[in-house]
Amino acid sequence: MTQVLIIYASDYGNTEKMAYAAAEGVNSVAGASAVVKKADEVTAEDMVASQAVLVGSPVHMGAVDWRVKKFIDTVCSGLWMQDMMNGKVAGVFTSGGGFGSAGGGTEIAMLSMLNNFAELGMLIVPLPKNTENYKKGGLHWGPYGRSADENGQPVGVSAEAISVAKKHGANVARTALVITGATIFAA
Amino acid sequence: MTQVLIIYASDYGNTEKMAYAAAEGVNSVAGASAVVKKADEVTAEDMVASQAVLVGSPVHMGAVDWRVKKFIDTVCSGLWMQDMMNGKVAGVFTSGGGFGSAGGGTEIAMLSMLNNFAELGMLIVPLPKNTENYKKGGLHWGPYGRSADENGQPVGVSAEAISVAKKHGANVARTALVITGATIFAA
Amino acid sequence: MTQVLIIYASDYGNTEKMAYAAAEGVNSVAGASAVVKKADEVTAEDMVASQAVLVGSPVHMGAVDWRVKKFIDTVCSGLWMQDMMNGKVAGVFTSGGGFGSAGGGTEIAMLSMLNNFAELGMLIVPLPKNTENYKKGGLHWGPYGRSADENGQPVGVSAEAISVAKKHGANVARTALVITGATIFAA
Amino acid sequence: MTQVLIIYASDYGNTEKMAYAAAEGVNSVAGASAVVKKADEVTAEDMVASQAVLVGSPVHMGAVDWRVKKFIDTVCSGLWMQDMMNGKVAGVFTSGGGFGSAGGGTEIAMLSMLNNFAELGMLIVPLPKNTENYKKGGLHWGPYGRSADENGQPVGVSAEAISVAKKHGANVARTALVITGATIFAA
Repeated sequence: MTQVLIIYASDYGNTEKMAYAAAEGVNSVAGASAVVKKADEVTAEDMVASQAVLVGSPVHMGAVDWRVKKFIDTVCSGLWMQDMMNGKVAGVFTSGGGFGSAGGGTEIAMLSMLNNFAELGMLIVPLPKNTENYKKGGLHWGPYGRSADENGQPVGVSAEAISVAKKHGANVARTALVITGATIFAA
Repeated sequence: MTQVLIIYASDYGNTEKMAYAAAEGVNSVAGASAVVKKADEVTAEDMVASQAVLVGSPVHMGAVDWRVKKFIDTVCSGLWMQDMMNGKVAGVFTSGGGFGSAGGGTEIAMLSMLNNFAELGMLIVPLPKNTENYKKGGLHWGPYGRSADENGQPVGVSAEAISVAKKHGANVARTALVITGATIFAA
Repeated sequence: MTQVLIIYASDYGNTEKMAYAAAEGVNSVAGASAVVKKADEVTAEDMVASQAVLVGSPVHMGAVDWRVKKFIDTVCSGLWMQDMMNGKVAGVFTSGGGFGSAGGGTEIAMLSMLNNFAELGMLIVPLPKNTENYKKGGLHWGPYGRSADENGQPVGVSAEAISVAKKHGANVARTALVITGATIFAA
Repeated sequence: MTQVLIIYASDYGNTEKMAYAAAEGVNSVAGASAVVKKADEVTAEDMVASQAVLVGSPVHMGAVDWRVKKFIDTVCSGLWMQDMMNGKVAGVFTSGGGFGSAGGGTEIAMLSMLNNFAELGMLIVPLPKNTENYKKGGLHWGPYGRSADENGQPVGVSAEAISVAKKHGANVARTALVITGATIFAA
């Protein structure tokens, strides 16, 4: 069984909903199985036991949530030192109020998670624009669930964004199934 | 008179409209005057003669339009070599179809212009969230005019986005008026 | 007196040394005064009382240290909600082992702090390339102190990087002195 | 035969050398074959005929060379519209003078190419830190060849950076061989 670890932090439950939708997507793929953990619960062993990792974060001030970053600094740094994750598979997703008309900082939020995975030597799975509901649920780096309306009032992430998170989970799982066992980064 | 140079490329006239709105904002500030040029018309002399520069670009594939980048590579590189723009003022704006729900790549588009200005030693003017119409016209790095609807059909940039571009032009002009003559980067 | 708040996190004392060098630079400017605080000690009142803010972070996995991000998420978010920092001045600096030949991720580390300041509506001060010792101490977004040698052995940040941090502190202070009292973001 | 298309622009031959080294790496992998083209020679047909794409660019003012961006804007935009590249494999590399101590802007240069590939729905291959010669030839997003010394004098890219480009080419080829024929982005 190919394990996909889904890691998240959440303030109001929006990123959490997307995390569980991604898990549903993973579990819909034969041979893949999702494990969902909060950022402060993840251990190095969880990472090593997984063939793929999906991380979700609220967008705070245009970058990753500090709890997710704490996981990266304290758990991933050691894995990087020891080259433990090379050739595995990674993806990201976010949610946020998105005040303004342009994602409210989700790009740098996603990139400040993706560069961690690049440092870990992991293949990065993007979100293709012909993904169903893309137009309401994401950008090229991954699913994005807008959780507030134009005026900043909380409305929760849409069903469309949830469905995109599910698709992304399945995409990451399929990539992991294809990649697992292959030697990409030969010496 | 403090000159603010506004530089743009445009495919369907959207970025151009925002450029002229920014110019209107500049000209609304006493003591400031806008000069508007297409990216392929700008010379090093135009840059040196200006106390501030605003650059606008369509978002193409999540980054700056190649015509704007050609201006940066061919005109700005030389100014950087000679430290000719240190202590001046800069800002950016973009327009784009924005397919998806999160700005369609405008952040890296804006940052791949802003880092040019950082290299030139110029102070960067952001767009505060309490700017009138911010909720329909931008993000923290500058005004963003979405030019297509959710399904990708062209609808032109909104009056709100145009008004934000005008405000940003005025903000940049006011900053230039305050900064001009000051010695910020002393030896 | 124009107050410049210098905020940092540090693991082995390198970023801390740069913070105190930046403070020395601030204090070298007549009319400016530095206050230095660790990221977990800063309050909203500290921010509001300051005309400029400099933040320094170790580079961890290509992005900002989680303790600095916690400060941003918990202290800066509220200031953003209330538009309390508009028109003030900001800068950043980092240190890091920099394994590889290209800064080891300092750009996204710096940008994931700078976009916080952009969201807060603060003017961003870059680091001009003709700054003394630039060639050993930074990049366009700010001072960078490499703290390890090519093989990853800790060597501490160089005297040159320290001197660049000092210059950057003075640049930020001078900008704050010029800007303070001016109305840049008029309604 | 799995075709890997290597695309580059070059001013002084440094990026070109890295492109041909990457091609050598591709050709060292059984079943893979490299095609090398300058950015202004690439057609949509070249892209469609390839299972993987590697793009190399000089770093100019902290972002991608305008000739590479012209290729992206004029050739890749159409492929994005038609979802023609989904599930293929991508990587990047750069060279540059790197004035300063931190890569001179290569991160945003690389990211302003990588986000194009993310938009095209392509899997992104990073550069693991245990790649031979990594310490002299790159960062997590790909190989970086510094072409000038500390004082900005041209010295050409090092043999180590060339060797990293070769490794990266082989990594991308192996990934393409594993991925080709798999259905990752199912409807």
